[in-house]
Amino acid sequence: MTAIFAVSLGDPAGIGPEIIAKSWDQRDTARLPPFFAIGDPDALSAIWTGPIGLIEEPGEAARLFPDRLPVLRISEGSTIWPGRPDPEGARSALHSLEMAVGLARSGSVQGVITGPISKVLLQQVGFTHPGQTEFTAERCGVSRNNIAMLLAGPSLKVVPITGHIPLTQVARTLSTELIVNRAHAAAKGMTRNFGIANPRIAIAGLNPHAGEDGTLGHEEQDIIAPAIEQLLADGLDVSGPLAADSMFHDAARRKYDVALCQYHDQALIPLKALHFECGVNMTLGLPIVRTSPDHGTAFNIAGQDIADPSSMIAAIQMAETAWSHRQNYDG
Amino acid sequence: MTAIFAVSLGDPAGIGPEIIAKSWDQRDTARLPPFFAIGDPDALSAIWTGPIGLIEEPGEAARLFPDRLPVLRISEGSTIWPGRPDPEGARSALHSLEMAVGLARSGSVQGVITGPISKVLLQQVGFTHPGQTEFTAERCGVSRNNIAMLLAGPSLKVVPITGHIPLTQVARTLSTELIVNRAHAAAKGMTRNFGIANPRIAIAGLNPHAGEDGTLGHEEQDIIAPAIEQLLADGLDVSGPLAADSMFHDAARRKYDVALCQYHDQALIPLKALHFECGVNMTLGLPIVRTSPDHGTAFNIAGQDIADPSSMIAAIQMAETAWSHRQNYDG
Repeated sequence: MTAIFAVSLGDPAGIGPEIIAKSWDQRDTARLPPFFAIGDPDALSAIWTGPIGLIEEPGEAARLFPDRLPVLRISEGSTIWPGRPDPEGARSALHSLEMAVGLARSGSVQGVITGPISKVLLQQVGFTHPGQTEFTAERCGVSRNNIAMLLAGPSLKVVPITGHIPLTQVARTLSTELIVNRAHAAAKGMTRNFGIANPRIAIAGLNPHAGEDGTLGHEEQDIIAPAIEQLLADGLDVSGPLAADSMFHDAARRKYDVALCQYHDQALIPLKALHFECGVNMTLGLPIVRTSPDHGTAFNIAGQDIADPSSMIAAIQMAETAWSHRQNYDG
Repeated sequence: MTAIFAVSLGDPAGIGPEIIAKSWDQRDTARLPPFFAIGDPDALSAIWTGPIGLIEEPGEAARLFPDRLPVLRISEGSTIWPGRPDPEGARSALHSLEMAVGLARSGSVQGVITGPISKVLLQQVGFTHPGQTEFTAERCGVSRNNIAMLLAGPSLKVVPITGHIPLTQVARTLSTELIVNRAHAAAKGMTRNFGIANPRIAIAGLNPHAGEDGTLGHEEQDIIAPAIEQLLADGLDVSGPLAADSMFHDAARRKYDVALCQYHDQALIPLKALHFECGVNMTLGLPIVRTSPDHGTAFNIAGQDIADPSSMIAAIQMAETAWSHRQNYDG
């Protein structure tokens, strides 16, 4: 079976269309699987002169893909100004996302890669989810507590346990149960999507030096250590709580497959310090494969032909990787 | 004038003696300036077979240095077991530190490099300072609020604004005044020690995405932005508050000379991810030059001849760099 992947355009005024078009340009050198874009073809032709092939349904994409970028049109005739987002574009981004997830749910595509959207703009047109991740989880009928956001680069995979919340709310948001749930999602995700049978999971402490035996904070003893005990009892290969500042150099990274981090920047600082251009966001815990580039709409550089498609290319590649491993795991 | 540097042995049961001896072994290839160790020579001969030359005062060190590791003896006859620290060793470490700082204060040496100590053990023998940095500041008559801890690697220099405190205490410890003071210490330190006339200072936000206009936390607006306004009014080249996760990749690092970070791990995670082996700790804001390797006593590997001297070597080199720039700045 030829796997087909659906790529939602994201906000048409952002760099989504450009990085998708540029990914198609590099389809041979980057060995990309066949994919098609979902959105307004005008958003692509506004910033790209390459060949577009309109399709009616996913099955047509594979045949067109070598010669044209297949596009499943979901709207048309909107006025698109790269760099100048508007509510109409946000609605189009939402429709594109919804269509992509629906096709994956029905099995018409083997995975979804979501282009970057503006959360603020989406929320202005009635979107009530924190982001595309939570939207996708809901459409798949999975609780937010049982998914995990994986950020992955060539030499580091991280899962933040808490997300986009103020730093002062991190400690009170953490719980043993949350850490246990995220670790299970991470472990299962490593196996299903990357073929790692018994993934090694490193769990960061919250405080400097992982609390230094309680002298620099007590969350390691009160919340994190009990989670690790539970996870070990569940048969997972976990270590920690580890001093976060000593987890991310070359030698340390070789000791684990995925690092569970207690808060956003603890995960994202090392990931982006090491892999800024090519990080991929993958949602673990879903019945479908979903990845996205690890950057935003970048409205400020849209339409200038300077956006770097590396992260989108890596996201498409990782979707295929995940799909192929799932054949072994689920089959 | 030949500059001479004093290196305190640190805890004699840790890896301090080994990395100092190994640094001397590499004195030619690493182009190290003449230095001498202060401590118990038995701590060196316990783990190293190289030649030691006892000295009575710093002036004798330069002549001996090419052929022997000069040692200023401050105690002797103690029983030293690498990897097995005891109170006597902690007292010896404290004396060594005290002597090194005193010699620098009096101008007998041009800088101090401090070997790693155990804070817990030092405190057991009556040491009341959080660490060697604060001890040195007090001996120099400088308030803790006016110094800054610089962590430096080849491609990144960071200054944490708060230090070894629980993560939950970071927000309440931060103040506009503290940030302003640290930034001034950082700016002056870049000029005095590295010869950078108008250093570019990047200031991190506290929250994910630097608070995203207040939706992910308010400290950026309440505390950090006013500090930046003040610093700009003072004529400093500062930028921020910046999203911490987008500050540390190659292209971002080229835009500043030093990054001011709001908390320990925000500074130390990127520094150690990028420069784990060769990070240096330098105290800014002191009348004397003081550096140290960016790692601890590592009792667990002491005496096994496997300690890596890279960080100590870099600390000695950076002390000389700082001293030579100070000649231009202070002279």
